[in-house]
Amino acid sequence: MSERIRVAVLGAAGRMGSTVVQAVEAADDLELVASLDASDDLGAVTAAGAQVAVDFTVPSVTEANVHALVDAGVHVVVGTTGWDDAALGRVRDHLADRPGVGVLVAPNFALGAVLALAFARQAARWFESAEVVELHHPNKVDAPSGTAQHTARAIGAARAAAGLGASPDATSTGLDGARGSVVDGVHVHAVRLRGLVAHEEILFGNAGEQLTIRHDSFDRVSFMPGVLLGVRRVGALPGLTVGLEHVLDLG
Amino acid sequence: MSERIRVAVLGAAGRMGSTVVQAVEAADDLELVASLDASDDLGAVTAAGAQVAVDFTVPSVTEANVHALVDAGVHVVVGTTGWDDAALGRVRDHLADRPGVGVLVAPNFALGAVLALAFARQAARWFESAEVVELHHPNKVDAPSGTAQHTARAIGAARAAAGLGASPDATSTGLDGARGSVVDGVHVHAVRLRGLVAHEEILFGNAGEQLTIRHDSFDRVSFMPGVLLGVRRVGALPGLTVGLEHVLDLG
Amino acid sequence: MSERIRVAVLGAAGRMGSTVVQAVEAADDLELVASLDASDDLGAVTAAGAQVAVDFTVPSVTEANVHALVDAGVHVVVGTTGWDDAALGRVRDHLADRPGVGVLVAPNFALGAVLALAFARQAARWFESAEVVELHHPNKVDAPSGTAQHTARAIGAARAAAGLGASPDATSTGLDGARGSVVDGVHVHAVRLRGLVAHEEILFGNAGEQLTIRHDSFDRVSFMPGVLLGVRRVGALPGLTVGLEHVLDLG
Amino acid sequence: MSERIRVAVLGAAGRMGSTVVQAVEAADDLELVASLDASDDLGAVTAAGAQVAVDFTVPSVTEANVHALVDAGVHVVVGTTGWDDAALGRVRDHLADRPGVGVLVAPNFALGAVLALAFARQAARWFESAEVVELHHPNKVDAPSGTAQHTARAIGAARAAAGLGASPDATSTGLDGARGSVVDGVHVHAVRLRGLVAHEEILFGNAGEQLTIRHDSFDRVSFMPGVLLGVRRVGALPGLTVGLEHVLDLG
Repeated sequence: MSERIRVAVLGAAGRMGSTVVQAVEAADDLELVASLDASDDLGAVTAAGAQVAVDFTVPSVTEANVHALVDAGVHVVVGTTGWDDAALGRVRDHLADRPGVGVLVAPNFALGAVLALAFARQAARWFESAEVVELHHPNKVDAPSGTAQHTARAIGAARAAAGLGASPDATSTGLDGARGSVVDGVHVHAVRLRGLVAHEEILFGNAGEQLTIRHDSFDRVSFMPGVLLGVRRVGALPGLTVGLEHVLDLG
Repeated sequence: MSERIRVAVLGAAGRMGSTVVQAVEAADDLELVASLDASDDLGAVTAAGAQVAVDFTVPSVTEANVHALVDAGVHVVVGTTGWDDAALGRVRDHLADRPGVGVLVAPNFALGAVLALAFARQAARWFESAEVVELHHPNKVDAPSGTAQHTARAIGAARAAAGLGASPDATSTGLDGARGSVVDGVHVHAVRLRGLVAHEEILFGNAGEQLTIRHDSFDRVSFMPGVLLGVRRVGALPGLTVGLEHVLDLG
Repeated sequence: MSERIRVAVLGAAGRMGSTVVQAVEAADDLELVASLDASDDLGAVTAAGAQVAVDFTVPSVTEANVHALVDAGVHVVVGTTGWDDAALGRVRDHLADRPGVGVLVAPNFALGAVLALAFARQAARWFESAEVVELHHPNKVDAPSGTAQHTARAIGAARAAAGLGASPDATSTGLDGARGSVVDGVHVHAVRLRGLVAHEEILFGNAGEQLTIRHDSFDRVSFMPGVLLGVRRVGALPGLTVGLEHVLDLG
Repeated sequence: MSERIRVAVLGAAGRMGSTVVQAVEAADDLELVASLDASDDLGAVTAAGAQVAVDFTVPSVTEANVHALVDAGVHVVVGTTGWDDAALGRVRDHLADRPGVGVLVAPNFALGAVLALAFARQAARWFESAEVVELHHPNKVDAPSGTAQHTARAIGAARAAAGLGASPDATSTGLDGARGSVVDGVHVHAVRLRGLVAHEEILFGNAGEQLTIRHDSFDRVSFMPGVLLGVRRVGALPGLTVGLEHVLDLG
């Protein structure tokens, strides 16, 4: 029988962190060796002999956590938001000095969301028209969602690379806002509806046909297969990896 | 065997009119007795002994056609757009002097569209949230569609009558237009995609559940069952009837 | 200020019952006066002065509960499954002797599901084709769902009443089961997918158009608005009422 | 200015062939040099100096056409159905002796359909559950469609390669056919509805999330971008290529 991977969870008292704790405990090939809350000392991770740490803390501490863990030779899977290019660059530089250590930073661990984005990238150049509709619960404060904007930018980049111009649109009269917001040339619409969680529809059209990619996220447990996949593979991915799609071998 | 209804088609050279001509000819219980184009004299309708006339002409002539046909004692089914309350009022007054004659004016003859609107009216008071998404071909010049605006007004009116306020929406940051246009308090989004024809989704949400009503219109032949239903029943509906829903016994 | 309605909940320790307890406690116009579990004596309902009782117990005791409550002059809202025509008939007979008391038995309290069924009934006669697709979590033991079968029977009855035959279907070759099960002439398909809860799509088609009615049930809290509506209105509905649609004034 | 590619169309009087003729004539970089019907001699293709031939004929003649065209050094794009492994093998062998000639045989030229299949292959290993629903016009004689069966086999193969067993399904009671047909372990459902053309939904589910890929084919013009892409690229793809996905660089 193979050894189990020894895992620490940072931010273990949070909603995502506590779900990760349960998921690690339920996995036969993983062993939970440390659960840290905001007040706990990071030294507990190495003291417990953790090989991989999962960070679902808060934007203000996540970067410092990662650098400390890299120094300690612990691989890290990061789900905390708030990473920008500068912060990622500092981790990449740090890892250049620690060739055996891997860090995976992923803005989204839902496999379906990651696949939807990857498929949108692949499909974008083949269609005359593309639009994005996202639907969320009405307590969400931003519109459109970060995921939908990210999708639109990916579609816009793929269209530009293929030499496609804007999607055709003869609209010349109507009501303000009807055609949604525009992100890198792609129209993005945000629906808010009681009862929903987080949903995205990516629509592509050519003469005579439509291709739709839809992702429905009902519950944060949907992130767990992606988190556990990251835990299992980060040790074999030295350096910095940004985005779960690279772990899925989708380019 | 029952007598066939004698039917005249006005605007017979147009796209809708010519489709009506074919549909009437294909119906066992109807007899096409006159097909008039823009240059033809309206006298041909009575000369041919038509009992019912179908008007798919243009906004500039449709009202005059209807008054002349009412004078001649011919029932009329009107699919031409451009009717406002004043024009409808004039026909209603005229019909008060001609108690045996019926005129049906319908903005939409697609049974599915008429039912979708009727269902939206019935459902609106029972849900905390409601939004409308319409999707059309990219050559359409107005956004959102007249049908979607009509649906939103009907939902808004039903919500107001039930004492409901606005749908919940915590949006406080984001991009202009993301939340669509707002019609009588209902958010309406317009998608334009090559390959589509005319589609509408009406979304209702409560805690824990969603109800969606969707109508897809692929081809103008979808109007024919509604037009023929109007032709068959308008003779038994003296006075002015506005909207096919009243012919469907849906209130 | 108007008096609050005094409510007892039977089966209060169950999943549905405990959700009802919370919903009653959260409603300003209702007062929870008794919560009974399986071992509690029904006398507690009248002792607490309850005006309305909600029964989410088990099939083996629900009918006896209802008769005892009717004897005590308490209105009843019943969500427990297992009622057949004979049991309903016995309650109807009993209520004939208690003219002031109302009993509402509803197989489904989700407003969206009740409306979807009502709309399917109204739409059925106007379309050449109709099919039902239900989608559920993979732990469900029966296929298709009772709700989908009920919907198909309602569509079948409406089609028969309108003189419609079977939906057109030229299928002459293929694989067993591909065309689903057939309930009163309506094809019904059952999808089982991890991550789903309970969903139903009712599809209607005519030449050139499609009408789709979809209900998504994500959580049992979706039943609460319907249960509370029943609690508020059952006192004004003497006799037996079967189906929440009659409370919604949808016929 | 670059030279236009000289194109011949075989089966030019058929529905697909005549649409290809129009599409080639409308393309700036292609020149239609020959249009052959069933009675025309294949020699006209070389006489006209065609570089690429498009074959939308019938199963009984398409293989002979391809061998003759390969002998003449003309690249071929084949959309005719009826090709089996033996026939493909004979063309592959023949092409081994004609290293400069390319033949592309594609069962489906709709870009959306090809992409949907490619995405289903990529997604399949990452989800616990997978099912396919196809929807077509009611005049179709086979159920489920060949495309849906092909999709199911691709999903089944990807699941098997990843070591996944059957999708979870607790169904133990119900009606015959409710769970659809089963192709390589994947449940496939066929809906038949007046008004539809050809549609496919591929559903994937994990705990807490769903991924849906849907392709709608409304009109045979949707095949033209794929056919023209094949015409433009087949000359740079020596040997036999089966499936448009290889031309799209999707593996």
